[in-house]
This record gives sequence, structure tokens and C-alpha cells, in this order.
Amino acid sequence: MDVPRLRSLDDLHVGDAYELGRLSLSLDEVVGFARRFDPQPFHLDEEAAQDSIFGTVVVPGLHTLSACFGMLMGGPLLRDISLAGSAMEIRWPAPLRPGEEVNVRVEVVEVKRSRARKDRGSARLRYVATRVEDGVIVLDAVGLHHLRR
Amino acid sequence: MDVPRLRSLDDLHVGDAYELGRLSLSLDEVVGFARRFDPQPFHLDEEAAQDSIFGTVVVPGLHTLSACFGMLMGGPLLRDISLAGSAMEIRWPAPLRPGEEVNVRVEVVEVKRSRARKDRGSARLRYVATRVEDGVIVLDAVGLHHLRR
Repeated sequence: MDVPRLRSLDDLHVGDAYELGRLSLSLDEVVGFARRFDPQPFHLDEEAAQDSIFGTVVVPGLHTLSACFGMLMGGPLLRDISLAGSAMEIRWPAPLRPGEEVNVRVEVVEVKRSRARKDRGSARLRYVATRVEDGVIVLDAVGLHHLRR
Repeated sequence: MDVPRLRSLDDLHVGDAYELGRLSLSLDEVVGFARRFDPQPFHLDEEAAQDSIFGTVVVPGLHTLSACFGMLMGGPLLRDISLAGSAMEIRWPAPLRPGEEVNVRVEVVEVKRSRARKDRGSARLRYVATRVEDGVIVLDAVGLHHLRR
């Protein structure tokens, strides 16, 4: 099913879920992100990564998160209704390696209408990235979105 | 005080705090990050941002977070002891604009030794970014770090 373009916070219902599609991050992209935002040896260099607990290069957690978030915010779902975001809780239950494909899914966890401002409200959305090859969850995050009604 | 280079999880004590220094993000950097990871109009274009609740371009929350995290992980503090990270909780209490300087500070919130593995443990570290001009907190995050002993 195509991801719809919502017209209002009221179009979101707890339990709704949307499949955003697949993504993978190349080693070049990973190294580029890591140099600026997480320059640890196991994000930068295959040889150095051999001495890490991962044994190979792994994607920085903030890169996985940012890429999945980019899929959501670059897509149609919230394009007309997103006002801001103000909080997030994230778990990275397993490492992701460059080139590995994940499925990205968004679920509606909570919807709240503002009492003070009838034209807006907030929603907690869960973003889950699941590795295609083995079904392992590599990102499980909940973001607080402020949205138009 | 210079940021020290820790030798073990045991060098971290609840309540310890480290000033990592200042940073600011240019409009070019912000637009570059936003294009890939948060392409909303109020991160990309001054004119479009006038219609947003912010009125001007603001830095994507994940960009502020990633830049502050990069300061921590690129510095000496955890260089010899960082094994991995697995969770984070973030609040963005106020918007940050391109070019605005922030002070970045790290505080030790919790330290846990592993029972199963004597050579490691975990620590919760709080990262706080405070705008220099007015003292307003623009990022308040707690990350779970797995560290060597």
C-alpha cells in the first residue's frame, strides 16, 4: 500500500502502521557520517573494526536513526501536517552493517489533541527498522511529533 | 579544564561533568543535513521557514544531537574505553538556529559494572547543549554507553 498524505492529526489512529520501504547505507555513506558525528574506529575502518566487539564496521546508531527519520520526513505521510518534533526515545537492539537492507515501518503509538490550540496536537510515532535478511530489529525509536489538525 | 582521557569505566563517577566546548552549525551544514535526514521546509529555506511556527530556519534536532555526540566521541574522554552504545532519550526543549553557538556539557548519570563480564560495564551520560547567548537549553539527552574497565 502506498503511504498516504495525511491532511490532519485526526487522520492518525493508535495502532495504524505504515511501511515506508527499504533502505541500506553504503560503507562510503557510513564513513562519511561517522567522520563528522561518531568517529569511532569500528565505524571508520574495516581493519580497526576487527578489534572491536563487532568484528566488522557497523553503522553509527545515529546514522541508522537519521536515515529512517529522513525516509519518514521526506515522504508524504506528515508533509502537510508536521509542525515540529521535541523528544525521542531510541533503542538499537542489534548492530547494522553497511550494505545490509532494512525495512522501515512507522506505527502510531499515541494521539493527543491540544486543549489550548484546536488547530494542533501531538502524536507519538514508533519507527522500527528490521533487517530484511533475518528479521532482526536494529532500530526501535519513538518520536514525539507536533502536528496540525 | 581539559577533557581527560579515561582509562576505565571506573574513572567515571555519578555527578562528574565535563565541558566539551562550543559549537555552531552553519546554514550550509544545516541544509546539507536536512536534505538527507529531515527535509522539512523550515530546515531548508529561509523563505519557506517564514510560514512555520519557528519563523526562520532551525537546525534539525537530529543534527544538533549528532554534532554534540560527535564532539563527545571525537574527543579523548571515551576514546580508549568505548565499546558500543545501545539506547538514548532526547528532548529538544527549544529551537536552535544556524550560526547560534552552544556550550556542550556531559554529565555522568549512572555507572554500572557488569556482573558477568568483569572487564566491562555501562554508563548513562547526559549531553546538554546550552545556547551561549541566553543560556537556554536546546538539547538534553541521555545515552547508554557500554565501556571497558
